[in-house]
Amino acid sequence: MDLGPSVADVAAAAVRIAPHIHHTPVMTSRLLDAMVGANLFFKCENLQRTGAFKARGAYNAVLQLDDPASHPGVVTHSSGNHAGALALSARTRGLAAYIVMPSNAPASKKVAVQAYGGRVIECAPTLADRERTAGTIGSATGAEFIHPYNNERVIAGQGTAALEFLKDVPDLEVLLVPVGGGGLLAGTAVAVRGHGVKVIGTEPDGADDAARSFETGILQPAGTPLTIADGLRTALGDINFALIRAGVDDILTVSETGIVRAMRLVWERLKLVIEPSAAVPLGACLEHPERFAGQRIGIILSGGNVDLDTLPWNS
Amino acid sequence: MDLGPSVADVAAAAVRIAPHIHHTPVMTSRLLDAMVGANLFFKCENLQRTGAFKARGAYNAVLQLDDPASHPGVVTHSSGNHAGALALSARTRGLAAYIVMPSNAPASKKVAVQAYGGRVIECAPTLADRERTAGTIGSATGAEFIHPYNNERVIAGQGTAALEFLKDVPDLEVLLVPVGGGGLLAGTAVAVRGHGVKVIGTEPDGADDAARSFETGILQPAGTPLTIADGLRTALGDINFALIRAGVDDILTVSETGIVRAMRLVWERLKLVIEPSAAVPLGACLEHPERFAGQRIGIILSGGNVDLDTLPWNS
Repeated sequence: MDLGPSVADVAAAAVRIAPHIHHTPVMTSRLLDAMVGANLFFKCENLQRTGAFKARGAYNAVLQLDDPASHPGVVTHSSGNHAGALALSARTRGLAAYIVMPSNAPASKKVAVQAYGGRVIECAPTLADRERTAGTIGSATGAEFIHPYNNERVIAGQGTAALEFLKDVPDLEVLLVPVGGGGLLAGTAVAVRGHGVKVIGTEPDGADDAARSFETGILQPAGTPLTIADGLRTALGDINFALIRAGVDDILTVSETGIVRAMRLVWERLKLVIEPSAAVPLGACLEHPERFAGQRIGIILSGGNVDLDTLPWNS
Repeated sequence: MDLGPSVADVAAAAVRIAPHIHHTPVMTSRLLDAMVGANLFFKCENLQRTGAFKARGAYNAVLQLDDPASHPGVVTHSSGNHAGALALSARTRGLAAYIVMPSNAPASKKVAVQAYGGRVIECAPTLADRERTAGTIGSATGAEFIHPYNNERVIAGQGTAALEFLKDVPDLEVLLVPVGGGGLLAGTAVAVRGHGVKVIGTEPDGADDAARSFETGILQPAGTPLTIADGLRTALGDINFALIRAGVDDILTVSETGIVRAMRLVWERLKLVIEPSAAVPLGACLEHPERFAGQRIGIILSGGNVDLDTLPWNS
């Protein structure tokens, strides 16, 4: 029996979520091509609703819930892009969304979730308290827990980005995506099955649990991640890891200076606002150009939610 | 006899430059729609080659020059987006491009022009010395002067942005563009003739020579422009002014805080890097919402060339 979502699940997700999400454009840059010595294609999930690919997985999960009239809603813990995505997709169906966020999360993130109709519940800034608080809310309200990445429906939804990408640029040879919890990477690995496209995960040096897990074949703890790429500090999920082992070709890590350099290049050259996590794949191309010479490389720019008051090159 | 380029000239320009420029995408934002109380469509000329609509006019002028084998090249004075656009379009035809820039222009701008193959010649930072230096180079080399905006072929080229826009969003009711020298506004006014679309120019309060000229019917001097929108400090051209009088419905001015606010909103909500000049039309919508209530508004995001080290909200 296959583990996790199938190619058909990703295809069904694409149809299911299509009325609610953007078919995001693909951009190119001759200068960036010249810098890497390859043909780079950038799929702009920073232009996705809620500013990140996370809307895909959240919608795919929420749209499969039972009749909203009697449904008690959804709950998750997230201080990142899944929080806004779940709140928006729940609102679309008229469901309550309880979002557990650490008390030290920036006020702007809480406001953003509330703007999408989410109910923010604060907790202590530890994973243990996040999980405990989400569990308490689930028991009290009956709300269904939607994990940010370790969830088959979420993974199938995230895979739709790669599916769209291959439709628009059919002759890609490699797909590069960032890996944190592994929802996007696992979904991509499923989506491209049978397409003959290599899938490579990219990760900060300072949050390399996916690379260590991939290398050893055993799910490794995240330890204490230290990276500007806040979306990639999460620990790899076990469902995600199994799919990554089965369908991913390699995982490369990138230095912090490489991430900031790549982020700035995308802002300057593609004129796109991306968050640090989204810059990691280009950072990998720039730090490992020999791996990609002359190839047609697809990069998913995963999100664009960044605090414009504190840019990494101004600190 | 009609003055300036005709609708047919703009249509011919669109065909001529098509192999060299991007058909730029159109973006929308529900939040920005709600803020203005209208339906806003943003044409992303910040994603155009060289990062601004100026590539359209420069290509249209340069592609109409004689046989490059015997041509002495082109010359202009510009410290802005026309400089890079002319250098790139000249290089495409194998022509020399002499770009006169004031000695106090940022080094990054000179490097950018050189990267497109332009030959940078420094002059004193006065309009008189810019014109004198460009004239001297023209006499010495035989290079043809391509004015940044007061040039019929340049104007026809800039008009192609509106033509594309109306093809992609046919039922626009109003088109809003920034006005500095008037190339984009004049070209837009020509391009939309017969479409029943209102054209409104938008300009900083601190550089309102177009608004004053439009109101009085007499071309007014620019005075000493004081605005963050560096692309709009130039004085309105006389060819531009005649076309604007004939085809533009109104010119609105916007405060500096309104420009910065609009710029930041586009970065945050559309995830697009735009320069201050490109934010002026949205600033006009936010400062004059009663003018646009319930309408379908097209906004040309004119460019995205901005110094990421000095953002206006961090100063």
